[in-house]
Amino acid sequence: MAGAPSPSSVPITPLLKDELDIVIPTIRNLDFLEMWRPFFQPYHLIIVQDGDPSKTINVPEGFDYELYNRNDINRILGPKASCISFKDSACRCFGYMVSKKKYIYTIDDDCFVAKDPSGKQINALEQHVKNLLCPSTPFFFNTLYDPFREGADFVRGYPFSLRQGAPTAVSHGLWLNIPDYDAPTQLVKPLERNTRYVDAVLTIPKGTLFPMCGMNLAFNRELIGPAMYFGLMGDGQPIGRYDDMWAGWCIKVICDHLGLGVKTGLPYIWHSKASNPFVNLKKEYNGIFWQEELIPFFQSATLTKESNTVQKCYIELSKQVKDKLGKVDPYFNKLADAMVTWIEAWDELNPSPNADAVVVNGTAKAK
Amino acid sequence: MAGAPSPSSVPITPLLKDELDIVIPTIRNLDFLEMWRPFFQPYHLIIVQDGDPSKTINVPEGFDYELYNRNDINRILGPKASCISFKDSACRCFGYMVSKKKYIYTIDDDCFVAKDPSGKQINALEQHVKNLLCPSTPFFFNTLYDPFREGADFVRGYPFSLRQGAPTAVSHGLWLNIPDYDAPTQLVKPLERNTRYVDAVLTIPKGTLFPMCGMNLAFNRELIGPAMYFGLMGDGQPIGRYDDMWAGWCIKVICDHLGLGVKTGLPYIWHSKASNPFVNLKKEYNGIFWQEELIPFFQSATLTKESNTVQKCYIELSKQVKDKLGKVDPYFNKLADAMVTWIEAWDELNPSPNADAVVVNGTAKAK
Repeated sequence: MAGAPSPSSVPITPLLKDELDIVIPTIRNLDFLEMWRPFFQPYHLIIVQDGDPSKTINVPEGFDYELYNRNDINRILGPKASCISFKDSACRCFGYMVSKKKYIYTIDDDCFVAKDPSGKQINALEQHVKNLLCPSTPFFFNTLYDPFREGADFVRGYPFSLRQGAPTAVSHGLWLNIPDYDAPTQLVKPLERNTRYVDAVLTIPKGTLFPMCGMNLAFNRELIGPAMYFGLMGDGQPIGRYDDMWAGWCIKVICDHLGLGVKTGLPYIWHSKASNPFVNLKKEYNGIFWQEELIPFFQSATLTKESNTVQKCYIELSKQVKDKLGKVDPYFNKLADAMVTWIEAWDELNPSPNADAVVVNGTAKAK
Repeated sequence: MAGAPSPSSVPITPLLKDELDIVIPTIRNLDFLEMWRPFFQPYHLIIVQDGDPSKTINVPEGFDYELYNRNDINRILGPKASCISFKDSACRCFGYMVSKKKYIYTIDDDCFVAKDPSGKQINALEQHVKNLLCPSTPFFFNTLYDPFREGADFVRGYPFSLRQGAPTAVSHGLWLNIPDYDAPTQLVKPLERNTRYVDAVLTIPKGTLFPMCGMNLAFNRELIGPAMYFGLMGDGQPIGRYDDMWAGWCIKVICDHLGLGVKTGLPYIWHSKASNPFVNLKKEYNGIFWQEELIPFFQSATLTKESNTVQKCYIELSKQVKDKLGKVDPYFNKLADAMVTWIEAWDELNPSPNADAVVVNGTAKAK
């Protein structure tokens, strides 16, 4: 079977081809896309160029993409551009905001196609789409993992009333080779590589927080998009490398509140290169202290019944951040304000269908 | 390397050889032990013979064991024997009570040695011991699963203050071949077999319930033993096949309260034979209704600060069972009473070290 791929192994139409954007934050030429060509080429890419906007980023031939640099972000968002981080991959969330699709997949440009234990190349995007399209099980743990997967089901003792599951908002994928360690662990275990392929997808139970990594992540924009804010990191900020963590804690509290599911596990990507642990330590050290306060905060955060949309939840959470974390460091006051700005910018770029209808009737302007 | 096993591959002393009992409930000759000989022979077995006590159970040569039939249970516990089920594998918990060891491994007699994907026979007991001897992580989810396993660690964003973990009380193993399905699922999917080997051990997060199966289960008797009661099932009872589930919900609430960990995942055993789904449906149908009330009950159960031992927790829980589940069915009043009897019997057979000390001083009798 070596040589040209058998035609039958190529799906006729890639899953959700017209409903999903791939968001890539980058500062360099996107040669890594060559390896992803068989899987990504049918999709639209949103490239968020970080750093110097005068630099030209090369995108391999044949990909359909739009690219935004800092000048574009400033032009599109005006003063609200302050909520988008600069010189940090947190800038990727601008791509979530400008997308018009229902689903987002985001991947780092040092991530390559991994192989499963049989040696087959893993179509990470296809697995994410499967994860997003089938329900989660946040209310009770299933010991055979994802009960909706072929060859599995709910085990004895799983309440029947919970078997319809919950809509899946987020699919968190993992990494072979370089694990996603913090700077202290990188320093202590410079040679550790992740070689264990765990053939499972599972739902993070309701009430449980997890460290969400943005390297290989997919989500349903309609269900959770406005909460996928990657915070204020990098240039001018006292912290980096907590962008995805922050988003993960926020989305988990909101998914729990709204009855939505978050999955982790498959698919794996191949993470090629460890970042510099000394540079990372500089970015992380405030976060290492602060997370000791942040975790109890998010573990005990509850939202009111009135918060029945993601936007309302996020605004309510921003107030709690200001009230309870402002005393940890003034940074959190700034972050709470940026959370509000983010929602304003999101709503500006994504007027709700109702607002649209009003515009059509000519009686009012969309916000 | 075929032929005789290389001496270096055989551990000199099996792990916890003198600190662990293997508990096996059975109604038949224990030929299944032949396959387990290389792994179980160094350990002591406690065999709980269910059904007709006049029947002789054959145990293969060379195993060190004690065997209890119904007459023995009645003789040892007197009137308190009423808390031990008859004609149901729930009787196994008598073995937990008479053991004097720190650790218990319990296995069904239709479970055989499974093979890992490389074809190697899995030493289930060794994996359980490893699970029990290293900490759990119930307070925050680690996306690379067990951080204490070789080649893994805590990922970026995992709070450092939580990395010492919690003592592990329970290790729940899984099953290849016949999955542990309820009667309705067995009826609908008679041919489904579990062929997926998921190479992971993970902690069930705090606040999350799971369906604990008694087929392949290990625990630390000192940490959680008195809560491992398998309830009233089988002969004279309106329910069966919920013994392990009941125990699982109770131990999880108590482990969460006491800050102890519960793991699930590896090791797998090979479950050889599906039980009859029609017979199972008869045993289960009350449970299928009742579990819809039981799960919300256990999900919202909280224990007071005064309950600072497993025994006290269990007695407090028994009161809540009577108060809140008695109205679901009178069976739960009977079960709540049996929970108290169980603790009385446990304490009689397992006088606490303090009580012993008092006896030594001659000033009082152990309870």
